[in-house]
Amino acid sequence: MITGKNYIGNILSAEGTTKFTTFNPLENKENEWTFTEASTEEINEACELAAKAFKKYSRASGTKKAEFLRAIADEIESLGDHLLEVYSLESGLPNGRAAGERGRTLGQLRSFANHLEEGTWVEASIDTAKPDRQPMPKVDLRKMNVALGPVVVFGASNFPLAFSTAGGDAAAALAAGCPIIVKSHPMHAGTGELVASAILEAATKTGMPNGVFSNLNSNGIEVGQQLVKNSFIKAVAFTGSLKGGRALYDLAATREEPIPVFAEMGSINPVIILPKALENRAKVIGETYAGSITLGTGQFCTNPGLILAIKSDGLTEFVTSLSSQILKIDASCMLHPNIADAYEKNKKKALYQNRVQVLAENSNNVKPNFAKQVVATVRGDTFLENPTLHHEIFGPYSLVVQCKSINQLEKIVSKLEGQLTGTVISDENEVDNYITLIHELENRVGRIIFNGVPTGVEVCASMLHGGPYPASTDSRFTAVGVDSIKRFVRPFSYQDWPNNLLPAELQNKNPLGILRNVDGEKTTKAI
Amino acid sequence: MITGKNYIGNILSAEGTTKFTTFNPLENKENEWTFTEASTEEINEACELAAKAFKKYSRASGTKKAEFLRAIADEIESLGDHLLEVYSLESGLPNGRAAGERGRTLGQLRSFANHLEEGTWVEASIDTAKPDRQPMPKVDLRKMNVALGPVVVFGASNFPLAFSTAGGDAAAALAAGCPIIVKSHPMHAGTGELVASAILEAATKTGMPNGVFSNLNSNGIEVGQQLVKNSFIKAVAFTGSLKGGRALYDLAATREEPIPVFAEMGSINPVIILPKALENRAKVIGETYAGSITLGTGQFCTNPGLILAIKSDGLTEFVTSLSSQILKIDASCMLHPNIADAYEKNKKKALYQNRVQVLAENSNNVKPNFAKQVVATVRGDTFLENPTLHHEIFGPYSLVVQCKSINQLEKIVSKLEGQLTGTVISDENEVDNYITLIHELENRVGRIIFNGVPTGVEVCASMLHGGPYPASTDSRFTAVGVDSIKRFVRPFSYQDWPNNLLPAELQNKNPLGILRNVDGEKTTKAI
Repeated sequence: MITGKNYIGNILSAEGTTKFTTFNPLENKENEWTFTEASTEEINEACELAAKAFKKYSRASGTKKAEFLRAIADEIESLGDHLLEVYSLESGLPNGRAAGERGRTLGQLRSFANHLEEGTWVEASIDTAKPDRQPMPKVDLRKMNVALGPVVVFGASNFPLAFSTAGGDAAAALAAGCPIIVKSHPMHAGTGELVASAILEAATKTGMPNGVFSNLNSNGIEVGQQLVKNSFIKAVAFTGSLKGGRALYDLAATREEPIPVFAEMGSINPVIILPKALENRAKVIGETYAGSITLGTGQFCTNPGLILAIKSDGLTEFVTSLSSQILKIDASCMLHPNIADAYEKNKKKALYQNRVQVLAENSNNVKPNFAKQVVATVRGDTFLENPTLHHEIFGPYSLVVQCKSINQLEKIVSKLEGQLTGTVISDENEVDNYITLIHELENRVGRIIFNGVPTGVEVCASMLHGGPYPASTDSRFTAVGVDSIKRFVRPFSYQDWPNNLLPAELQNKNPLGILRNVDGEKTTKAI
Repeated sequence: MITGKNYIGNILSAEGTTKFTTFNPLENKENEWTFTEASTEEINEACELAAKAFKKYSRASGTKKAEFLRAIADEIESLGDHLLEVYSLESGLPNGRAAGERGRTLGQLRSFANHLEEGTWVEASIDTAKPDRQPMPKVDLRKMNVALGPVVVFGASNFPLAFSTAGGDAAAALAAGCPIIVKSHPMHAGTGELVASAILEAATKTGMPNGVFSNLNSNGIEVGQQLVKNSFIKAVAFTGSLKGGRALYDLAATREEPIPVFAEMGSINPVIILPKALENRAKVIGETYAGSITLGTGQFCTNPGLILAIKSDGLTEFVTSLSSQILKIDASCMLHPNIADAYEKNKKKALYQNRVQVLAENSNNVKPNFAKQVVATVRGDTFLENPTLHHEIFGPYSLVVQCKSINQLEKIVSKLEGQLTGTVISDENEVDNYITLIHELENRVGRIIFNGVPTGVEVCASMLHGGPYPASTDSRFTAVGVDSIKRFVRPFSYQDWPNNLLPAELQNKNPLGILRNVDGEKTTKAI
């Protein structure tokens, strides 16, 4: 049941006075539930509870934490179709997407459970003592990753499940041993509350301490600001706009004790189409990209917002194919009127730039909150002169930049800001002739793709979802895959510590049987 | 030969107008060389050269980089005794310490070379494609660590070799594939220039690109500020004061593109002596700690500045032993008059606090720039009421806090700021009865030590040198040991990338034979 209240630990609470509702963009009307923003007292209580819970939860074994994560997945499944219905009512996204995203969310939780059970992730490293070493005896040192502290997780507008209440950031932080406080996204607060109830059910069933999880509602920015400033909080995870992410980063950096903020802030995901590929299959590439641009109404961080190529007949053919295909695809609903409005506003701002030519804009079958998907084109020099064209336009929008030469293409790539992804469309072996260009692209992105589309972020250990600023606030971490746990741990060393008091991961007998680095050798053997 | 000039890449340059000299604290006189601060043009040129060098150097193989690091070590050795003489003239530290620190510096460089040759550090992870997966084919994804970009390294006052020009931070960044610009420490600019010449000799001999290394002189803060603000710079490493480290962190965080700053900013390194240990061996512990407090004239980040225990006859005996031993140890010279002055000033400020009782202050044999080592004591409640007593006093100083109960001791530990180390002195099994206390201590430190002293930082893979703020700006990294390379790399993913264009670490055949994570299995096998 959706109560509209906050969860302060396992207690439903609504002490605040600010109320808000969520919105059904497809039906263009408000949903029935009323949510209450968390009050300052509730925020502080959630943080204090998290700090208390940290003392116990940070020392829970991998097995116990895995049990908790699996229980969360099971409880979310138990919410059944009701969760998917609320998801769609609050996002305008279809049931199929809801079910797919739920599957991804459960998969993420369970893959972290496996990761914890396998156990190697703590990066156990042991250097045994050498009491006879000259001129000084060598001490015994043992190091492993431990939890950082309570983490604030900001729900993302565009992934009500997979990047929200029990999404990737939440799963990673809980796996690390960090209690979390979720700042629920106001556009899908009902979905958030349902998932929150599942997490707390799982926490109770697996005996987790109260405060390991809280869920706070808010419609404005104050609740998030107070959370980030609270001295009990030791890290922040965010997925959203550059403006929002940077504001949180700045807030965290100016605390008396600065804390890490991992903000994934989107990008325009440049796609380079090489000449021979254009010569041989311009039409098909155009069709493929029309699909990628409009997937999920263009509301993915990896949406291909920028297509780069050198002028040629092939490029003209590609542009024709892309344009005609864009017009054939049905318009679809955006997540919220605010997002639809921002899309139209930002799009117009970009298209009114001098010398930006609209190739195709779909105006058919456009209902309220639906996005008119659009592709436009500019010359390379125009793009270079207009930094505003480099900014993300969240929605089904892409700009084709027609370069006059390979030199100009290289220059454009070298001027790009940091990006989540870069894509290269190439004929077989063609790419071998563009190594300088590829290296420039690599220096600007977190993931590089060959003959594919940037949309569709596979959840696996080898995925890097992040990238140089402003794609993320810290390119040294990923937001997707089990390695995303590294954002929320710190290495810790024990020197000459009694074996019986060491964590199991570092004890001589290696009771967990994990792979460890022992005196420079990777081994599962006991000492 | 010491010229007093900057190295802008491999060119000696002195375009600036600000001059300064280094100081011989032992003889209380200026050294003979005159150094020229880098000008704005020189700073910008060094950064631009570093960015150009990055394109080539970041793609050098592990073998090539290892060759470079070994050549640096060899060239430093070739500087012979002259380096040690200049080191002592600029630091007042004895020849034995100079030789020891050189050994450590060479060891660090060579251990990074081994690390690169071994190769597993890139954390290669491969998830192979599953074209038949339903409902969507799975793409091929391969991830590994790559270099972050040009790094600015600030030399530390207290380690003219091991934490300066070719010290731990420099070796880690170069190993990662990042060109470095060293902001040479003004107190040992001559030592720095000699080491810089060795690095450039090694770069030439091993064919490294110009700009892989620059060395800039400065006596004020402006050169460092300009470096941190330069848009070509992608990370900063610093060892020094909280004030200096925080200023650089703030500067980096307010850039248009914020960059990571790893600043190790010292700590007071609390030592807890448990009751039975005091009962049975108070005298010996006092003697041991008198040695640790005065080692290197107390000028180590891990100096034990705070000793905590519960009031008892044993504690009285410890205090007596510590005091008498402190008076027996000869006073010694500090690094620089400025450091000696700051020590006296900060010490007086702390000792003038109400109810702080000086136990022993050595005034024998004190020449100019020598430190009067001191131990003092306060009651637990006084310590709790005076936050200024929690701050580091850089030098041979330690404060013994006499707690009235275990509860007060726990409360004090829970109120401590982040620390590099925490130490527990315990009789056998005694510590088992103080688990709550130990857990509080663990949450506040980077390394915990059993029955030892915090001074003496072993350089090995299992060392964590860092800790919660303000011990460091980011507790997720270490400044010592091969894992310190992680500060300067970012993971990078290739999706469906042609095998022949992948780095060797990710190619099917695994030509380097490194341990990789392939479809969830750790293996050295080819695919």
